[in-house]
Amino acid sequence: MKSFASDNYAGVLPEVMDALHAANVAHARSYGADAITARVSAQFREIFSAGAEVFFVFNGTGANVLSISSATQSYNAILCADTSHIYCDESSAPETFTGCRFFPIPANEHGKLTPEAINERLIRKGDVHYAQTAMISITQSTEYGTLYTADEISAIAQLAHAHGLYLHVDGSRFFNAAAALGCSLADISVNAGADILSLGGTKAGMMYGEAVVVFNKGLNKTIAYKHKQVMQLASKTRFIAAQFEAMLANELWRKTATHANNMAQLLYKSLSAHEGVHFTRPVQANALFAEIPRHWYEPLQEHFPFYIWKDNTHEVRLMCAWDTMESDIASFSAAINELSKTAVPA
Amino acid sequence: MKSFASDNYAGVLPEVMDALHAANVAHARSYGADAITARVSAQFREIFSAGAEVFFVFNGTGANVLSISSATQSYNAILCADTSHIYCDESSAPETFTGCRFFPIPANEHGKLTPEAINERLIRKGDVHYAQTAMISITQSTEYGTLYTADEISAIAQLAHAHGLYLHVDGSRFFNAAAALGCSLADISVNAGADILSLGGTKAGMMYGEAVVVFNKGLNKTIAYKHKQVMQLASKTRFIAAQFEAMLANELWRKTATHANNMAQLLYKSLSAHEGVHFTRPVQANALFAEIPRHWYEPLQEHFPFYIWKDNTHEVRLMCAWDTMESDIASFSAAINELSKTAVPA
Amino acid sequence: MKSFASDNYAGVLPEVMDALHAANVAHARSYGADAITARVSAQFREIFSAGAEVFFVFNGTGANVLSISSATQSYNAILCADTSHIYCDESSAPETFTGCRFFPIPANEHGKLTPEAINERLIRKGDVHYAQTAMISITQSTEYGTLYTADEISAIAQLAHAHGLYLHVDGSRFFNAAAALGCSLADISVNAGADILSLGGTKAGMMYGEAVVVFNKGLNKTIAYKHKQVMQLASKTRFIAAQFEAMLANELWRKTATHANNMAQLLYKSLSAHEGVHFTRPVQANALFAEIPRHWYEPLQEHFPFYIWKDNTHEVRLMCAWDTMESDIASFSAAINELSKTAVPA
Amino acid sequence: MKSFASDNYAGVLPEVMDALHAANVAHARSYGADAITARVSAQFREIFSAGAEVFFVFNGTGANVLSISSATQSYNAILCADTSHIYCDESSAPETFTGCRFFPIPANEHGKLTPEAINERLIRKGDVHYAQTAMISITQSTEYGTLYTADEISAIAQLAHAHGLYLHVDGSRFFNAAAALGCSLADISVNAGADILSLGGTKAGMMYGEAVVVFNKGLNKTIAYKHKQVMQLASKTRFIAAQFEAMLANELWRKTATHANNMAQLLYKSLSAHEGVHFTRPVQANALFAEIPRHWYEPLQEHFPFYIWKDNTHEVRLMCAWDTMESDIASFSAAINELSKTAVPA
Repeated sequence: MKSFASDNYAGVLPEVMDALHAANVAHARSYGADAITARVSAQFREIFSAGAEVFFVFNGTGANVLSISSATQSYNAILCADTSHIYCDESSAPETFTGCRFFPIPANEHGKLTPEAINERLIRKGDVHYAQTAMISITQSTEYGTLYTADEISAIAQLAHAHGLYLHVDGSRFFNAAAALGCSLADISVNAGADILSLGGTKAGMMYGEAVVVFNKGLNKTIAYKHKQVMQLASKTRFIAAQFEAMLANELWRKTATHANNMAQLLYKSLSAHEGVHFTRPVQANALFAEIPRHWYEPLQEHFPFYIWKDNTHEVRLMCAWDTMESDIASFSAAINELSKTAVPA
Repeated sequence: MKSFASDNYAGVLPEVMDALHAANVAHARSYGADAITARVSAQFREIFSAGAEVFFVFNGTGANVLSISSATQSYNAILCADTSHIYCDESSAPETFTGCRFFPIPANEHGKLTPEAINERLIRKGDVHYAQTAMISITQSTEYGTLYTADEISAIAQLAHAHGLYLHVDGSRFFNAAAALGCSLADISVNAGADILSLGGTKAGMMYGEAVVVFNKGLNKTIAYKHKQVMQLASKTRFIAAQFEAMLANELWRKTATHANNMAQLLYKSLSAHEGVHFTRPVQANALFAEIPRHWYEPLQEHFPFYIWKDNTHEVRLMCAWDTMESDIASFSAAINELSKTAVPA
Repeated sequence: MKSFASDNYAGVLPEVMDALHAANVAHARSYGADAITARVSAQFREIFSAGAEVFFVFNGTGANVLSISSATQSYNAILCADTSHIYCDESSAPETFTGCRFFPIPANEHGKLTPEAINERLIRKGDVHYAQTAMISITQSTEYGTLYTADEISAIAQLAHAHGLYLHVDGSRFFNAAAALGCSLADISVNAGADILSLGGTKAGMMYGEAVVVFNKGLNKTIAYKHKQVMQLASKTRFIAAQFEAMLANELWRKTATHANNMAQLLYKSLSAHEGVHFTRPVQANALFAEIPRHWYEPLQEHFPFYIWKDNTHEVRLMCAWDTMESDIASFSAAINELSKTAVPA
Repeated sequence: MKSFASDNYAGVLPEVMDALHAANVAHARSYGADAITARVSAQFREIFSAGAEVFFVFNGTGANVLSISSATQSYNAILCADTSHIYCDESSAPETFTGCRFFPIPANEHGKLTPEAINERLIRKGDVHYAQTAMISITQSTEYGTLYTADEISAIAQLAHAHGLYLHVDGSRFFNAAAALGCSLADISVNAGADILSLGGTKAGMMYGEAVVVFNKGLNKTIAYKHKQVMQLASKTRFIAAQFEAMLANELWRKTATHANNMAQLLYKSLSAHEGVHFTRPVQANALFAEIPRHWYEPLQEHFPFYIWKDNTHEVRLMCAWDTMESDIASFSAAINELSKTAVPA
């Protein structure tokens, strides 16, 4: 099966598999006290900032919950987009583990938060009856496959810091964002004022593993303890570190993420020609959102699984991955061609 | 480095690496909806029982917390050995996630719970002022490397069920236990009355991954939701499932666990000859506990890391793994030989 | 001071003080095992339904958290109005204690939820990535002093039950609602399909104390344990029970709540004459919402404290209590008369 | 009924009832912003220390949970006596709200913690796998009715502070302790090094209400928010404050607590004469512990309820209250006299 359902349907990059092999020698100290983890942590510091601390975790929800828990007491609140993964797709894990309230901020039509929208919720500071906001969380690239520019992130960071809040970036597709923007990883995180980053590896072509990268030293006091407590400390951490080492070496991530982004552009162009396809969001990274006729769902999904985003408007999501090929897109486009010729069922 | 510190210092079995490669083809549905996961789940049902449900998770703490959360409300209590991993080595993750109280039951000198010791805490049922016991958790093999026989587990299960409690088995070294006892995996879990099992993969030679195996259908109502909520649902689940498939194929686990257990016996024999070494627990699986002179710590650990268990009595833990070699044991024994000849420092 | 700030600024009804005296004789079993509690519980069953169970608690947040916790597992979600007390005024207590997600439903202009608005969020049932809705919570009378009719509650209850959800009524001003609607307490709770009710005593003229009344037997399994766990089980419960006994005797609550409601109507009439006062919500119980000139805030609040609801629109809340007097309203109206004559400051 | 079951079976002191009446005039700001609360808070500062902050709460469990939550993150642990109320009688409220682990320290035969016993658990600091101890909690007077001297508290406080830990005193019967020791309230709290105190009012003769008194300014940062979050912020706080004002005026508490303590001594003397009564703990405050023949339970409890502490040894608890009278003791003693004459049932 080749699918447009999610980049987590894809397998593992060959370079990452090689790195796993290379790491599989002899014994290594467990729980991150090994040499590979030390080496890759240093690499993170070079890439992001001299004071950055990295904590390797298993999955994206774990990365987000760890990030949030490092900055909060249980009476705090987090502001996030109403479309965000932490609000829509992580069950109530964030509440259960942190005890905090999550306030949804209406995302704009591109799935992004604006300082204006955030500002509406910066209320009742010091009021004990109201969960006290401690953090703003944004997603890069967003759940709609759109991008915050470095300046947009800066503006939100400045707003956050002016109100004594931390800025978290949920970057499960952060590599796609940096590749699309043609910037460094630091440009849209630490250099733009982010305090902590969930850096995704799995969707980018790793087998498993994400990284929480801490830029604000104020968040370093407790996070090592929470890392274990949130059930995200791997005993054989070396195998997560080794995968990231492969991703970072010669910016492999940029090559593979650029490929996925390019495939999304190609898919966009292929489908734009079709009358039945109406794109609903700008295509900026590796995701596409479009309304298609409902009777196309079944025949299309039989061969090319995808997500139905909003059933009432027939909006679907198509996602390209590191291994999406031009031929996949050609086949998909051909299938739509066929469907376009069939009559709408009565 | 070759160490006796922990079996989680060891790397990954070649058969498991091969399975990871084999699983890395094409796209697969995420979050456990893939074909490999379905196939391996069926394998679990064959091995354990027709009604068993399996949930693949990332690590041991995650497996235990998921197991416990499937059986509890926040006003409940869990009875566990005062030496158990969930009580001593998982931070307060169990409490934070479940809200429950954990009552430590004094383990006997072999690190095991007895029905008599458990019975002492089966008190105040129905008293709203007292956290209501819902579950008993035992470890197989125990933190002291000792084993519960199937009959011993049965006796605890009967006590549990007579009081309306669930029995959980923390089996991070369950393969070592079954190998040492020469029995099937079912014999010391579902057939002995256990309701839920944390089945360890990582320490047995996998890269990452454990399995929560549910035998009691009463625990199946909520566990799929908790699986996600507890941050243990892998997007690329197929790679955990594939590792277990390799472990279960032709009982690979029995071969490798038996090897580790045999190495522990060999180490026991080698060290028994030394006057300075006083074994403190029976050697039944792959762990050894012994008191050694404190001035041996440093020179020994330089080449062969191990855990200092109780500093006041100089009790140390030596752990054998799937890759421990006879030559490792010979080297270690030789090093002790040398140390035996040196005078005790003033 | 006499204020329009909140009905919890008022003191205690003389009949309630008398009941406290009458209850203060000899010893009584603690934690609700006393004779008064038994007697008043029977009274609740007569008033509501033969199967109703009552749990006396200290305050409104406690009542709501207990109600919610009786119906939920930690992966659940609760739907509530975006204007509701549990969403806006109880810190993150609901999340911290239950672990659940709270989804805000946009209230209509009268501060009420409609089946249509609720229906929008009845999504993703069975999806483990999404906190699973277990309960709908409405407020009667609402935070805007408006009322749900029995039929409106019925319609929401039917929607809830059709989706396997519980209906909770936050009734911190439930007496005011029943008095205004001229109905029984049962008419707008158990008879309308509510599963559990937070029945407010404090704002109605008690010193402290609320009651959680359980109608749905399915919620009775765990609530007694949660009652203690949520820190709301009073050792001298008899003194809460006795206060409720006074409130319920000869429907004292109806007399005093009707008075408060009548005072609200009188205040409405008095202020309606003023050009500067623009009422923003219908006045149906004991609360009034109106926009007034901002330069009136300070001189008015000096003598008659009130809440500023929305600073940007100059919307204020005026609340009448059991002890509001016609003369208080006359004085307030006179003060506004004076202010109307003064020029707007430049 | 007059009972020896618990001092929370007793009613309310007349002086406290008078204070409730006196507080019931006009309107007062809610949630502790009223004049009485301000006045009584000042009184607390005079009695304890100039920097003390007081937070009025509803009940003892609330006081303890608030105290603990003010000092902890969710990965922390609290050391407490295995016999303590927070460990044995507060369900799992402490865990559910704080997320922390509670480690039971074996109390000595007098129900007290010693620095030596505590020291055994001051282990694994900085180890992320182990819940990190943040606080020691002791009870004064203890669950066995015994007393810590000021020096004993000092020694524990010094140990705590030397290890960077806070010392909490659970003082649900703190007035009885100070009365029995003939010292000031400050002597055995702030002056002895305690960081935070749960000061009990209910068992001392109030209707409801306890106070959390914070001495260590480091604990003041978050406690106001947690006060609300833990569901312990009363809207009509003035009525709790007023009760404490009555208790503190002219040290009413000392008079009434001394009476209860004296009654305990009288009961001790009366019963010591009986062969069948074997006292098991020193009688130092208002509680007595004794082993009595099991067949006495029923006839005695018919008229004088008491708690069976340890059924296996027939140890019972007898508690004197502010309203215990010499005649109650005479009646009880006479009843035992009668029982002594009856034969043991076959």
